Amino acid sequence: MNILVTGAGGFVGRELVRLLLHAGHQVTGMDFSADAIPEGAKAIAGDLGDAEVRRRAIGSGCDALVHLATVPGGAAETDPAASRRINVDAMYDLLLEASAANNGVKMVYASSIAVFGDPLPPVVDDATPLSPKMIYGGHKAMMEHAVAMFSNRGLIDGVTVRLPGILARPKGPSGMKSAFMSDLFHALKAGEQFFCPVSAGGTIWAQSVRQCAENFRHAVGLNTSSLPTTRAVTLPALRVSMGDLAAEIARQCGVSEALVSYGNDEALEAAFAAQPPLQTPAAMRAGFAHDGDLARLVSNALAAI
Amino acid sequence: MNILVTGAGGFVGRELVRLLLHAGHQVTGMDFSADAIPEGAKAIAGDLGDAEVRRRAIGSGCDALVHLATVPGGAAETDPAASRRINVDAMYDLLLEASAANNGVKMVYASSIAVFGDPLPPVVDDATPLSPKMIYGGHKAMMEHAVAMFSNRGLIDGVTVRLPGILARPKGPSGMKSAFMSDLFHALKAGEQFFCPVSAGGTIWAQSVRQCAENFRHAVGLNTSSLPTTRAVTLPALRVSMGDLAAEIARQCGVSEALVSYGNDEALEAAFAAQPPLQTPAAMRAGFAHDGDLARLVSNALAAI
Repeated sequence: MNILVTGAGGFVGRELVRLLLHAGHQVTGMDFSADAIPEGAKAIAGDLGDAEVRRRAIGSGCDALVHLATVPGGAAETDPAASRRINVDAMYDLLLEASAANNGVKMVYASSIAVFGDPLPPVVDDATPLSPKMIYGGHKAMMEHAVAMFSNRGLIDGVTVRLPGILARPKGPSGMKSAFMSDLFHALKAGEQFFCPVSAGGTIWAQSVRQCAENFRHAVGLNTSSLPTTRAVTLPALRVSMGDLAAEIARQCGVSEALVSYGNDEALEAAFAAQPPLQTPAAMRAGFAHDGDLARLVSNALAAI
Repeated sequence: MNILVTGAGGFVGRELVRLLLHAGHQVTGMDFSADAIPEGAKAIAGDLGDAEVRRRAIGSGCDALVHLATVPGGAAETDPAASRRINVDAMYDLLLEASAANNGVKMVYASSIAVFGDPLPPVVDDATPLSPKMIYGGHKAMMEHAVAMFSNRGLIDGVTVRLPGILARPKGPSGMKSAFMSDLFHALKAGEQFFCPVSAGGTIWAQSVRQCAENFRHAVGLNTSSLPTTRAVTLPALRVSMGDLAAEIARQCGVSEALVSYGNDEALEAAFAAQPPLQTPAAMRAGFAHDGDLARLVSNALAAI
């Protein structure tokens, strides 16, 4: 199968491309720079907003399209126009062009739990209405409907998966406001002190990057008749407190959890660390999974950094 | 209050502008042509996609914005790019510009039951997920999320109302695929034969244009804390069969219902005349209403044509 992955140089993209290559697929990876795209994939470097770059990427063969490329949450807040240009306009063009090249193309879209906004209700489940607050979440939500509409028209065979916190991102600026969850891993692995900007009791929905890539691989082969009519599922995730997460990372890294101190950034906690119980039966029925338990989540995440 | 109404020359817009003027508001009406905008309103003629036209309209004073202007459903199917340009891009620009001119501006958005797509589930209620199939419904659904996101950020104070079939549109081409519902009124009022393209048992959700304008007037003054977190409500509507509707129109017009014959256009029936029971508690709680009963729906609709 010829699979086009946008954002193939990102930390989820790299993991997914390696998984797809290992499974014997032909992979075209598209990103700003070819440098980070795994070897073995055909690399297309350029801006997703550039029609010529998209044309080259789609022209490489596209039995399936996994759309990971995005202006991330923090960057979208800083530059809403860039988010609109890439996360809405360029993606809409990409859907039109991919379906014109291959009518009914399988298409997997990386949306986000940011579509729910905040504050969240006491429980989030498949019936929770979308009410985005961040620019990023708003644009992701808009494009969920585009994926549904294109799918209902038979132009694409779409799957939207909403990602929880994915652990652990590489060190360094990611443009993601939720980067503190990943920075915790890097600090403890290096035996360094870490200041967590939210409280120890703050709860997050998390999934390892390995599990996340596995879920995308599953989505590529999914029979979409198992999906809700919206074509969208919230991926299963473990709900863990920052304190429990830190303790388990410290245990697996053989360092003291006392390296971690906690703050009380209310805005950050409201947006990223006040996540209530999460129920994802639609995703479970469609065969998506979380890491299983906290120890496995942490070991999966540590193995990838 | 200074109220800007886009699509003010349309059949809902004209009724609404007259209602708002009667209530003592200053109204700016925007439409392609000034001709159909009711006297008493300040008319701004031009294309919603033209930034200069929007600037003039917003500059006339905008304590509240009622956004009715749209590329309608049938026209959107024929020209999806035009729908994207007006129903998505120009509306998004309008939201940005109106909120820049008046941060937190009250904004009422005319969405559509087309956001639900088809086939519809056995009952439609406030929990029914959106799964648009028509271009029009897809674009309306996308912009519902933009209204929620802009509202959650405090840029606007938004209300989305999803319109059912509005009766009766003026005679002549409207660009609406559901025009047959209105054409039935015109034919029977004139004592003419009418071929209804869907079956007598086909069921529609309907509201008179008078009731619809009244609902928009209500939305302008609404305390939005009464709304769901999505900011969107499906307007209450009467569910009537085409046969019952024809019989009641015939009765009130003093003609024979035998003037009407029925077809079986399956696509049209699936999209517009297979509407299951509808429950709209969120809209009811927020003070929106339907016409009350079939006789009232028909008399309200006949009074306006």
